[in-house]
Amino acid sequence: MPKFSRDDFLALDEKDDLAPFRDEFQLAKDLIYLDGNSLGAMPVAALAKAQDVVAREWGQDLITSWNKNGWFHLAEKLGNKIARLIGADEGEVMACDATGLNLYKLLSMALDMRPERKVIVMEGSNFPTDNYMAQGLIHQRGQGHEIRFAEQDDIMAAITEDVAVVSLTQVHYKSGYLLDMKAITQKAHQVGALVIWDLCHSAGALPVALNDCQADFALGCGYKYLNGGPGAPAFLYVAKRHQGKAMQPLTGWWGHANPFAFEQDYRPADNIWQCLTGTQPILSLSVLGCGLDIFERADMGKIRVKSMKLCDYFIDLVEEYCADFGFTLASPRDSTKRGSQVSFTHEQGYAIMQALIAKNIVGDFRAPDIIRFGFTPLYTRYVDVWDAVMGLRNIMENDLWRRPEYSKREAVT
Amino acid sequence: MPKFSRDDFLALDEKDDLAPFRDEFQLAKDLIYLDGNSLGAMPVAALAKAQDVVAREWGQDLITSWNKNGWFHLAEKLGNKIARLIGADEGEVMACDATGLNLYKLLSMALDMRPERKVIVMEGSNFPTDNYMAQGLIHQRGQGHEIRFAEQDDIMAAITEDVAVVSLTQVHYKSGYLLDMKAITQKAHQVGALVIWDLCHSAGALPVALNDCQADFALGCGYKYLNGGPGAPAFLYVAKRHQGKAMQPLTGWWGHANPFAFEQDYRPADNIWQCLTGTQPILSLSVLGCGLDIFERADMGKIRVKSMKLCDYFIDLVEEYCADFGFTLASPRDSTKRGSQVSFTHEQGYAIMQALIAKNIVGDFRAPDIIRFGFTPLYTRYVDVWDAVMGLRNIMENDLWRRPEYSKREAVT
Repeated sequence: MPKFSRDDFLALDEKDDLAPFRDEFQLAKDLIYLDGNSLGAMPVAALAKAQDVVAREWGQDLITSWNKNGWFHLAEKLGNKIARLIGADEGEVMACDATGLNLYKLLSMALDMRPERKVIVMEGSNFPTDNYMAQGLIHQRGQGHEIRFAEQDDIMAAITEDVAVVSLTQVHYKSGYLLDMKAITQKAHQVGALVIWDLCHSAGALPVALNDCQADFALGCGYKYLNGGPGAPAFLYVAKRHQGKAMQPLTGWWGHANPFAFEQDYRPADNIWQCLTGTQPILSLSVLGCGLDIFERADMGKIRVKSMKLCDYFIDLVEEYCADFGFTLASPRDSTKRGSQVSFTHEQGYAIMQALIAKNIVGDFRAPDIIRFGFTPLYTRYVDVWDAVMGLRNIMENDLWRRPEYSKREAVT
Repeated sequence: MPKFSRDDFLALDEKDDLAPFRDEFQLAKDLIYLDGNSLGAMPVAALAKAQDVVAREWGQDLITSWNKNGWFHLAEKLGNKIARLIGADEGEVMACDATGLNLYKLLSMALDMRPERKVIVMEGSNFPTDNYMAQGLIHQRGQGHEIRFAEQDDIMAAITEDVAVVSLTQVHYKSGYLLDMKAITQKAHQVGALVIWDLCHSAGALPVALNDCQADFALGCGYKYLNGGPGAPAFLYVAKRHQGKAMQPLTGWWGHANPFAFEQDYRPADNIWQCLTGTQPILSLSVLGCGLDIFERADMGKIRVKSMKLCDYFIDLVEEYCADFGFTLASPRDSTKRGSQVSFTHEQGYAIMQALIAKNIVGDFRAPDIIRFGFTPLYTRYVDVWDAVMGLRNIMENDLWRRPEYSKREAVT
């Protein structure tokens, strides 16, 4: 006798406080979108916002929009909205630039604040752009800095007295493993190091408590769980106590103490504005606001509870219904150690994911063998979990993944 | 007897081959928009494009758009369109990031290519973000580089054997003075220096011949004469002969030789892709394409001829009709030494510009005393020149600029 039925999941949706939020996103009824950890779904409000920014703010108000429509202060305004989601205060967050650029700025600041130390602790298996940016920075500074790569359980031991900066992504992009922000930050501070938290897979996915953890710096992505649109500007956080103490190196005019004085020499602003470079992409930035507005009405605690349940049920069902098909759980079984995604390894992972996508069950594949499913409580239904696993079982039972078209690799995967 | 009449200008519009392009922009009939050098007007096509990118590409196609709708190659595709306008070849230009960031990348590359030299020649009166970025870079590298500031006619003499890089904006943002790209580049190469050209006020305003001038590097803005929208991504150019020879330091994953291999260590692409950092703001980038598409059908030579005429007439008319009101021409009188703008100094410049804007004649003010008028041949009519000067005369004759509301400064000017 099976442990679950589809009706159980429909019943969970019935009782779900967050269920109505799905209507705020444009999603086809039959689409099971489990890739919001790569590109969040489109808030319905985004279309009207884009139209308004293009036709009225740009087309009609033109240059006056910098004042009249608040373009110049948009990075700060949206930053403050993000601050609420990540346990930061007003004036500690800016929505700007891209994640890699923000990491570059913060890492350079942190290294300047620990000039006598040369070691940066990072996770080698992390989504590589953070590591790449650090390598570029090290190469450019030419001061003999080195990256000490450590994985998951070895990170604490890698944080020793010679470490300048610990720069980690809180939730691992492949496994979904959730690092202990509080313990790691504490350990870093004990040895005199600073910490940068990459929240790409955390912000909007689970409650983050930067100030409660005494974090130093953080950054993250606008287009995953925050639903800001493709390539939406990212964000960065600098704890108040560090503002004005170090200078980020991408010293464009928006970070100047008096940008409209057009002075010849750079004078850094002594607050979070120093972290801006120059003019931001206003259309993309404005639309990011639509994703953030939804979070003003959604409770992060409820989001986390639902996220854990969605993931737990997904694992339960795969174990129940797909046990014989060679999937190995690549995410923590313990939901308190997991972000909002579940990954499995399978040697035919690529073709299996293509077969799923053909059935309108959209997750993604990460080389060499990971299939990854992101669960976004604002628009993922409990019944999606059931249907996704039944779809997966159907593919495996009938060897649908063997179709030749599913093993043809696209340029971008 | 007056030298001109309004009918003369209407007649010029009648004969103007470029006149039909105005219909491709959303501009109120009674608006005289002379600020396209700060924020270009909105191409009518931009609204449908924004709607399509939001509702279909993002909302419907979601993550598949990276392949299906060409998001991943958009920076390159638009870069190639810009290449045509600035005398570059395919594969030499990317549309990406922001101007300051692009300057940072290119300057760092150029300094790496001249490790034994410490001097950067820049113009101190330039729009300051380039100088600020250079100062940030110098501070971060800590290798004793210094900026040698020189102005206009002194630039050639400042380019001596100790210079690593000459980094100049071709058209001055205040005066509109047009530097001689060929002569300066030649001089720089004679002494063994490299040249970076900032084309913020050139691209789309006048023909630029980067390769013909043997330029090394260039960058520029998407939201001025290219009409790409507020904060549209910028562009950068690296001459083919330099690609793969030096590495830009903002080493995000899009610049990796194999970005989707997710390797632990950075390996630079050996072509223009190395100049990318990470994910671009797709909505803003897509809309930039609408501005560029118009240029596919517009002849840069005709644009330049009309631009020179518009500016010449404007100066003529101000000298004819506003001679007694204390305006001093701050731009070159010789149109071959001028970009596509005309500036005057006036001690009441701020209030005068506010009074003009209240009359729907939109230029801008640059501290301390410059009023600036940009002429964008794709949508500026000859009769606008007449009407703008008549509006200016009316303001001066009747002391309209004295109204208290016109001297109240806004946060962003």
